[in-house]
Amino acid sequence: MEMINSGNQEKTTTGPGIGLWGFVKSLPGKLKSCAVETVKKTKKIGEDDPRRIVHSMKVGLALTLVSLFYYFRPLYDGFGQAGMWAVLTVVVVFEFTVGGTLSKSINRGCATLLAGALGVGAEYLASLCGDKGEPVVLGLMVFFLAAAATFTRFFPNVKRKYDYGVLIFILTFSLVAVSGFRVTQILQLAHQRLSTILIGGATCMIISIFVCPVWAGQDLHNLVAANIDKLASFLEGFGGEFFGVSTVDESGAVSSKNEGKSFLEAYKSVLNSKVTEESLANFAWWEPGHGRFRFHHPWKQYLKVGAMVRECACLIETLNRYINSKPQAASEFQTKIQQACIKMSTESSKVLRELASAIKSMTFPSSGVETHTQNYKAAAADLKTILEASPLPTEAHLQEIMPALVVASVLLDIIKCIDKISLSVHELSRMARFKKPKSTATVVLEKQQQQLLHRGIVKPIDDIADDDNHVVIEVHGTSQDSPEIKNVQPPDGGVGEKK
Amino acid sequence: MEMINSGNQEKTTTGPGIGLWGFVKSLPGKLKSCAVETVKKTKKIGEDDPRRIVHSMKVGLALTLVSLFYYFRPLYDGFGQAGMWAVLTVVVVFEFTVGGTLSKSINRGCATLLAGALGVGAEYLASLCGDKGEPVVLGLMVFFLAAAATFTRFFPNVKRKYDYGVLIFILTFSLVAVSGFRVTQILQLAHQRLSTILIGGATCMIISIFVCPVWAGQDLHNLVAANIDKLASFLEGFGGEFFGVSTVDESGAVSSKNEGKSFLEAYKSVLNSKVTEESLANFAWWEPGHGRFRFHHPWKQYLKVGAMVRECACLIETLNRYINSKPQAASEFQTKIQQACIKMSTESSKVLRELASAIKSMTFPSSGVETHTQNYKAAAADLKTILEASPLPTEAHLQEIMPALVVASVLLDIIKCIDKISLSVHELSRMARFKKPKSTATVVLEKQQQQLLHRGIVKPIDDIADDDNHVVIEVHGTSQDSPEIKNVQPPDGGVGEKK
Repeated sequence: MEMINSGNQEKTTTGPGIGLWGFVKSLPGKLKSCAVETVKKTKKIGEDDPRRIVHSMKVGLALTLVSLFYYFRPLYDGFGQAGMWAVLTVVVVFEFTVGGTLSKSINRGCATLLAGALGVGAEYLASLCGDKGEPVVLGLMVFFLAAAATFTRFFPNVKRKYDYGVLIFILTFSLVAVSGFRVTQILQLAHQRLSTILIGGATCMIISIFVCPVWAGQDLHNLVAANIDKLASFLEGFGGEFFGVSTVDESGAVSSKNEGKSFLEAYKSVLNSKVTEESLANFAWWEPGHGRFRFHHPWKQYLKVGAMVRECACLIETLNRYINSKPQAASEFQTKIQQACIKMSTESSKVLRELASAIKSMTFPSSGVETHTQNYKAAAADLKTILEASPLPTEAHLQEIMPALVVASVLLDIIKCIDKISLSVHELSRMARFKKPKSTATVVLEKQQQQLLHRGIVKPIDDIADDDNHVVIEVHGTSQDSPEIKNVQPPDGGVGEKK
Repeated sequence: MEMINSGNQEKTTTGPGIGLWGFVKSLPGKLKSCAVETVKKTKKIGEDDPRRIVHSMKVGLALTLVSLFYYFRPLYDGFGQAGMWAVLTVVVVFEFTVGGTLSKSINRGCATLLAGALGVGAEYLASLCGDKGEPVVLGLMVFFLAAAATFTRFFPNVKRKYDYGVLIFILTFSLVAVSGFRVTQILQLAHQRLSTILIGGATCMIISIFVCPVWAGQDLHNLVAANIDKLASFLEGFGGEFFGVSTVDESGAVSSKNEGKSFLEAYKSVLNSKVTEESLANFAWWEPGHGRFRFHHPWKQYLKVGAMVRECACLIETLNRYINSKPQAASEFQTKIQQACIKMSTESSKVLRELASAIKSMTFPSSGVETHTQNYKAAAADLKTILEASPLPTEAHLQEIMPALVVASVLLDIIKCIDKISLSVHELSRMARFKKPKSTATVVLEKQQQQLLHRGIVKPIDDIADDDNHVVIEVHGTSQDSPEIKNVQPPDGGVGEKK
């Protein structure tokens, strides 16, 4: 009770003399607050990703199973000799993601086999050199093989996929070569050890695949989609934030104004996502088909999309610097720019949202992408016209309109970047064989297009979009009956070719 | 000989029938070219960083030493039982950098001790529960301890420094708890195992510290300096590249024109340097004092500098997009901007170079930093004056002058960023107790300043710089005799306070 009360006491030790006593008196309180802090942190880490708790329990389970298996069945002379390897394998091999676990298990298994065989060979060779030559030959072989294998770990390809395998290779080779056993003994030992490693590895693989699996591929997939979403959040809010206008967009989507300004900071995590994405892609490479991901899902394409998303995030970082230098007086000229800029910003954010949701649902990007792409292209064209044609504002100084001009220019760069992202997401959806979307709107659209297609090359100008912009749907090619989409280029002619 | 010749044969298999035969014939050539490729790659990896070759040989050496030690002294029943742990420790613990090796060795040692003690305790507790209860209690304890320990690996603090230790903790605890030995047996085993682990760990540490050591701290130090240099290279070349002017700067420094355009791409690697910097800083934390780095060198400050450098690199990424949209016609107005921009770009690159060389040589940033800072500030002020005061160019359209305007604006941001970098490098040099520079020029300058200081507050305007810009050296504060520099603020009043 004392401890609990002392935690609530206020600090009244302002005098210099009672400093130490005050410290001692406040110690239980401090300890308590420290404990509370730790509990809070633990809770937060668990809540951030509940799979972490599950993972911890899976590791405990695997370890307990393997331990008890060997505890009850002391197959060989005591536990220490061989069963140990099963426990060791489980501890070292069990990773958070299925891909990580598989990668390490397979690496470990193959490397042990290969190095074991080589070790036996080395042992045999050395034994031919007589009692005096043996240690010298063995030492030399261990030195050269270890040095060479260590060096291969610097090769980027090896580092990426087989780093752990090389480590185990060195380990096993050294152990076998220097074990001092005769070849026949080694073979018996190898049999024991391999079987225990197999049991350990298999336990890990089975538990990691069948008990609440965490797929690295799924994580990569979600991460890329989430990153695109973060950029969209920024662009959605930016126009209104910078020009100080309320952004009630036409589609009635809720503006993120009332969520605070966190949406303007979310993109920052995108900038440093490269390493995470690459390691997830490496792990995903090892995973078997799961859910709607095949065995050779195009994981590399996610990295390409990710690289472009980061490029875009870098531009957004520049844009973010202008968020506090809002233009003061809005001249007529500026209002014109402003409209086009806000349009570009919100429309490009809608394209990003569509792309993100297409990835999430594993469907082809909907026709909304085309529509909004055309919208922001129209806005960009408007902006260029204003900049080219309209007379220069004589009432304003360059200094005043400069922030708006820079923002406009960076936005033009951003939409170029988004074109590229859109292209690579289309490429991804083609490579990964995403589903074709079948909403009512697209069905109607497709019927119209089919009719048009059967008449030949058409370039209809129509008002399909939800606002007053010119939407140009260009239909390329003559009547095609092939349901295959060959090389969809979203900015120009995607809609027409879809079937 | 056949293999070598076939490599030189030209491909003459254009007919369809002889395709397979052609393939078989070209196989040795292909194999040869593949081998040549591998050799080239190996050579390149070795040449890129010769320390890799040395590291490989160090690992080989450590392993050979430990192996032979146990080969010649089969202390315990055969090699397999305990000597194995020394080999295992060497293979797993030996890292490229000293910090990495120390971190793993110390983690391994401490975790083994702690987990061993706990394991013995668990074993004792379980034995109190009788023959039937024992496996249940042991299984439960292994499960809970393994799960809890695995969960702590998700704590960022633990992950950063003690990840490997927690792994070894789980491993050792499970091994000891489930070993099925009595407590007395365990103590004997623990003694054997700990001593072998110590021998393995000590071998690694000694070889890694005393044979061509690779210090993570030194690497971090060099990396941060090199990254600053890369930004400087870009800014040095950018002005001339964008405005299409030959950049022969006043100080006679060689313009990087003739080096190709690689200097414009170097900054890209800076963008993704975060993870490398962080892991180096984590390893550096473990390293003892070496060379001119103390034990508690302010490694975290390098991360701060690094973060700002990356921020600046992001702005440069934006700038780089404009390099191909050079302004066509240079109006009078544009020429004015141009001069100021080139000045800002080259002067800020000089500041960065000075900062990088200050870090490299571990001295306080020289007075050149102040001079060039004042220079680019003057240029920025000029630019602002032009933008504010001069009449808008009526002959040009906004569209045409926009790239130059954006570049100017981003450059203004970049110099703000460089102010911050400069500030944090000054902070670093203060925290890390860098040497004060003592070149002849600074000595003269210091004497002058000291004289001025003793007369009171002075604001001399002088032409110390190597060009025709106004150099304003503001001397703050009254006569101070304290040699300590308290809080150097480089942009405003660094020179005056130096002594």
